[in-house]
Amino acid sequence: MKSAPPRPARARCWSLDEVLAWIAAELTPTSPETLPRIELFGRVLATDVVAFADEPLQPRALIDGLAARADDLVGATAYNPLSFRLSASTEALRAREVALVNAGDPLPTDSDAVVPLDYVHAADANRCELIDSVPSGHAVEAVGSHVRRGTTVFSTGRQLSAADIGVLAQLGIGSLSVIGQPRIGLVLVGRDLVDSDCPLAKSATRDADSPMLSRLIERDGGLVVFQHSIGRDVAALHAALAEIGLDAIFVVGGTGQGPDDLSSSVLAETGSVAIHEIALYPGGSAALGHTARHTLVCLLPGRPAACLWAYEIVVGGSVRRLGGRDLALPYETCSLTLARKIVSTIGVTEIWPVRMTDFNIVEPVTTAPRDSLLALASADGFIIVPEASEGLPAGATAKVYLRGLCR
Amino acid sequence: MKSAPPRPARARCWSLDEVLAWIAAELTPTSPETLPRIELFGRVLATDVVAFADEPLQPRALIDGLAARADDLVGATAYNPLSFRLSASTEALRAREVALVNAGDPLPTDSDAVVPLDYVHAADANRCELIDSVPSGHAVEAVGSHVRRGTTVFSTGRQLSAADIGVLAQLGIGSLSVIGQPRIGLVLVGRDLVDSDCPLAKSATRDADSPMLSRLIERDGGLVVFQHSIGRDVAALHAALAEIGLDAIFVVGGTGQGPDDLSSSVLAETGSVAIHEIALYPGGSAALGHTARHTLVCLLPGRPAACLWAYEIVVGGSVRRLGGRDLALPYETCSLTLARKIVSTIGVTEIWPVRMTDFNIVEPVTTAPRDSLLALASADGFIIVPEASEGLPAGATAKVYLRGLCR
Repeated sequence: MKSAPPRPARARCWSLDEVLAWIAAELTPTSPETLPRIELFGRVLATDVVAFADEPLQPRALIDGLAARADDLVGATAYNPLSFRLSASTEALRAREVALVNAGDPLPTDSDAVVPLDYVHAADANRCELIDSVPSGHAVEAVGSHVRRGTTVFSTGRQLSAADIGVLAQLGIGSLSVIGQPRIGLVLVGRDLVDSDCPLAKSATRDADSPMLSRLIERDGGLVVFQHSIGRDVAALHAALAEIGLDAIFVVGGTGQGPDDLSSSVLAETGSVAIHEIALYPGGSAALGHTARHTLVCLLPGRPAACLWAYEIVVGGSVRRLGGRDLALPYETCSLTLARKIVSTIGVTEIWPVRMTDFNIVEPVTTAPRDSLLALASADGFIIVPEASEGLPAGATAKVYLRGLCR
Repeated sequence: MKSAPPRPARARCWSLDEVLAWIAAELTPTSPETLPRIELFGRVLATDVVAFADEPLQPRALIDGLAARADDLVGATAYNPLSFRLSASTEALRAREVALVNAGDPLPTDSDAVVPLDYVHAADANRCELIDSVPSGHAVEAVGSHVRRGTTVFSTGRQLSAADIGVLAQLGIGSLSVIGQPRIGLVLVGRDLVDSDCPLAKSATRDADSPMLSRLIERDGGLVVFQHSIGRDVAALHAALAEIGLDAIFVVGGTGQGPDDLSSSVLAETGSVAIHEIALYPGGSAALGHTARHTLVCLLPGRPAACLWAYEIVVGGSVRRLGGRDLALPYETCSLTLARKIVSTIGVTEIWPVRMTDFNIVEPVTTAPRDSLLALASADGFIIVPEASEGLPAGATAKVYLRGLCR
């Protein structure tokens, strides 16, 4: 098989940087909504979170032990054990009394230290002897030592982690205002598209795009509100682009210049095409624009690998932007050494799936064409060769986006 | 506030490496289940995936263009345009016929190349003139060029990504056998534990652990099947440890040595405690064992930061192991420079939340005690100081686990 070469850069081609700048400038996070804490995981704060009380609210035992008055303990040693009454109450301590406490318990009134159980020499139900002293404040969490009332705990824009949810629970914060999830409609345009479980007729294409895109949109914090498969029905595409209550409409397929490629012309008729022809391979036939009502429309190529990369490199950024997340790719990166050279077209940003061959060594995947989804099956990550570059020599250090977390 | 120092290492203390080796040796992935493709995202293959047909199954156009016989094109140039009949059918081509095809379409029988639309000089409904030739195979995807029938596409143990789901769709694979999700019961032991939205009575503790653990268990591929809050009810703990149909029971709280700490003694009575006292701070009072029926039991400290780290560093590995995932921490790491020294106790693995102060520079978080969840609010990641180390000097390069992805 001989692949068609990447499209050459044209005068009217958009560079990837221009496209990402357009997304950053044109799109703003969706309206906030207030949600109960149980639904906040992974969401992006639309407000600062301020502690409305000290944490802890009262002095608390840091360890299991005996709450005591530090002054009472002075002089206790193994040679001079001091005897204490074991209080049944954990409310308040009198002189020469101690009380058993669990880690996390509030200290009894008038106690100011917790003695480790190791320091207990002998004990019965009512008394115990201590063989060492501790200073005031020992193993005690003072009021406000974790956070002071009025402190900003989390700032607007933070994406809430599991530990953050724990902090909110600890602070007694039951609900918060977060950026709304971008509501996205998915429209599949294409000749004889069949669900992939059906037997394949000669002219039909299995739909690999929608199951893939749904997961990626979800990963980026979006919500797929509907999914229509409309074949080559121009009226249905017009209708889909007139849907309301959406933050974006993604049209998959029909973005090229062939006989069935109606997506960009229909968008141009009913709204506006802002960006078409991106200097990106695979995925350059993606386009961005707006409906007449100014809903974002993203056109994605139907060919699965092109669809994947158009989403990952361009369109996914719009989902993250609408959801208040960072526009940057949600992959960790690593500097690795390239075992074989990569030749790239100047003027085109190229994506190269790579696999690890040795510790810190990668090479381009050759088991399947680069513009096949199958190339990713054996890839451990990918390299983005910028449009100004004509490639990378063998032995070069390359920034590799790691597959490990591209779920 | 003066913190209690990390527990010193004791003769019977388990090192973190020993604990992780125990998890790897004692636990095996749960039984596989067969699921439809729509539920496969993020799941771990229990079987190899083999392509049962070539992909593509028939030669396919790589670009929008004109399907042609390459032999017919020889000699076409701008000075010598060749004329072709435009076939209405895309089934089969006769000599000196071409047919419009979309990228992804199967090639008409007897065609062997696709001519880019740029090469069309003039055209009407029935004829067109071409001004350049292409060789046989140009812009054609040959049968099996993405993957050959019988090739192993994905191996057992792979966690399926969004692109992988696309590959399965493309190959027409509708269901697969994957490792079952570990089914986990969550039991909260503790004095006067209240849901965190309730007003806080003097002696009560807000439950920050269960919302946090639920998200983390979910992240690691586990399924929280039930959650019981049982206070100090020993009989209820016995009953919970007798539950069947679970892969693991996590008991939160009551793991220390204080008056209410019943978890490990009840586990010892009804089953067996394999590991108790881990040389880890925070989180060292975690324990691992089995019920009488040999269901895994993990005891987690109730104090939120200790609970978090006991889960992250130890117990989470058991969830991933049961679910067939990698035991390793699901965080990306990065080598960064430490701006201020860290002092750590020899014999104890210590966790230090750190925050970025400058490009590639981190320092320990000081806004909240290290054993407070709040320390994580301003952390960008954490450092694990191994038990053999007494700390790291200022200027040292440290492996930092990045918060960015610890969702």
